[in-house]
Amino acid sequence: MAGEPAAIGIDIGGTKLAAGAVGPDGAVLSRARRDTPADDVDGILAAVGDVVAELAPDGGLPIGVGAAGLVDADGAVRYAPNLEWEDLPLRDVLAERLGVPVTVDNDANVAAWGEFRLGAGREASSSMVMLTIGTGVGGGLVLDGRLVRGASGMAGEMGHMVVDAGGPRCPCGNLGCLEALASGTAIGRTARDVLRREDLPVPTALRDLDELTGKSVTAVAREGDEVAVGVLASVGWWLGVGIASLVNVLDPQLVVVGGGAMQAGELLLGPARESAASHLLGRSKRSLPPIAPAALGDDAGVVGAALLALEV
Amino acid sequence: MAGEPAAIGIDIGGTKLAAGAVGPDGAVLSRARRDTPADDVDGILAAVGDVVAELAPDGGLPIGVGAAGLVDADGAVRYAPNLEWEDLPLRDVLAERLGVPVTVDNDANVAAWGEFRLGAGREASSSMVMLTIGTGVGGGLVLDGRLVRGASGMAGEMGHMVVDAGGPRCPCGNLGCLEALASGTAIGRTARDVLRREDLPVPTALRDLDELTGKSVTAVAREGDEVAVGVLASVGWWLGVGIASLVNVLDPQLVVVGGGAMQAGELLLGPARESAASHLLGRSKRSLPPIAPAALGDDAGVVGAALLALEV
Repeated sequence: MAGEPAAIGIDIGGTKLAAGAVGPDGAVLSRARRDTPADDVDGILAAVGDVVAELAPDGGLPIGVGAAGLVDADGAVRYAPNLEWEDLPLRDVLAERLGVPVTVDNDANVAAWGEFRLGAGREASSSMVMLTIGTGVGGGLVLDGRLVRGASGMAGEMGHMVVDAGGPRCPCGNLGCLEALASGTAIGRTARDVLRREDLPVPTALRDLDELTGKSVTAVAREGDEVAVGVLASVGWWLGVGIASLVNVLDPQLVVVGGGAMQAGELLLGPARESAASHLLGRSKRSLPPIAPAALGDDAGVVGAALLALEV
Repeated sequence: MAGEPAAIGIDIGGTKLAAGAVGPDGAVLSRARRDTPADDVDGILAAVGDVVAELAPDGGLPIGVGAAGLVDADGAVRYAPNLEWEDLPLRDVLAERLGVPVTVDNDANVAAWGEFRLGAGREASSSMVMLTIGTGVGGGLVLDGRLVRGASGMAGEMGHMVVDAGGPRCPCGNLGCLEALASGTAIGRTARDVLRREDLPVPTALRDLDELTGKSVTAVAREGDEVAVGVLASVGWWLGVGIASLVNVLDPQLVVVGGGAMQAGELLLGPARESAASHLLGRSKRSLPPIAPAALGDDAGVVGAALLALEV
């Protein structure tokens, strides 16, 4: 039948906690979900214990965790903008509570690993850059067939490459990070900027929206609204600038883009490809690597975390 | 005495060709130098044959070459802005002419490898980012103790990360690449921009210079000229923006900065460190890796090329 689970993968995001029992080949055999009690560390730890008990009542399976925030090489969460944890030795705390081996990495890193092994990157033999475009921008790197964690476990923060040093402020405090220009938040802000221009020459459904978000702009764009399509093209242009910078530095086999903003699909990726191609060094002499949408959806983090737990 | 040479390293730059016979430990045992006949491919190949004959009259030593330009995974030079070669299978041409194994990589990559093994990065166990700041900006990456070459051999072009999308034009054709803002060329341009401001409030020796270059501005700055010092601080600020972006993405153990512009030393690196620290993600929770000047000077390319030849 479905086979025996080999590990549990858990993806702790700012709002949702997704978990799965995963086979040795990465297949998700069963799933569990909770809301993340974002302002309550004990609540998060209890929710983890809870899904583990649900998925593996007999215990004993190794656990991989992807956690939102900066995670160091010892599996401690140093800081997370959207969760109330800080300097929390998550790996060691969970290992002691649950009595099994635990691996903890950044949520975007584990999602990248899932996509590389079983998703959009499954055909790639060695290297992949993944960008996760949601409220913010996360990322993960695979080089030489391995997840790049960095000297202190904090590699992969592609959202905080500066692409427009005089540009809009990023939640990190700096100006013009990729996250400030090519995130769900940036889609909403760009739409507001466009609507504030008095001489807007075309009618747009966006005018009727009280609150503009990446989600609402994308929904209107998918119905063909020209202004909303233009907003996504503008944000896609910035995404392409960031992708070209990464390709110039890392020359990966492919680039994968995931996250909630990928609801926009080609409305975002098409302009991103054009912009990236025009910013590629030696563009007359080489071609851009494929820029593909993520394939596993919410399973990417669960699968990647479980597979990383099996590698230790 | 000095030991037997194990390989020959050759660094083919836009103006000079530097070569050395190198021991198995990376020590340079003898050196040879030529001007690079930049507009004459046959002349370059002849010069390579010439230095090899001079350094190893008996032949037989493997040869490593660092070549200016985009070099693909097969050791072919696809394109070089300052040399007249294009789509030249340099590795295969040299191997056939000289009858020994030849390795060819980008000049900045081999310099990074030399610094990692024996120079500023010799204490690093696994990862280093190197930036080479000359007329342009080159770079090399070491991760997991290995040189990162990329899927098509073209990784490491850190000079073409976009850091200021509306900024000055780069020789590559785009706007606001790191190379356009933090290179020797950028030092000269920034000085001209400053001098064009009519209301310059302080006296400066730069006013007397007919032609401003990175070299001339640096010379004046080292004598204490405040305006020239300010120009280097401004360029150093941009260098720091680029370094922070790289650290956010790669989290290396250290960053090494080499190239002709490092004549400016701390006048450039000091402001770069401040700027990089202020752009680091999670800066309240982590510290910047060391940002150190390159240690091997012109030997970096020769040593790195030879050591790469020995690894094949």
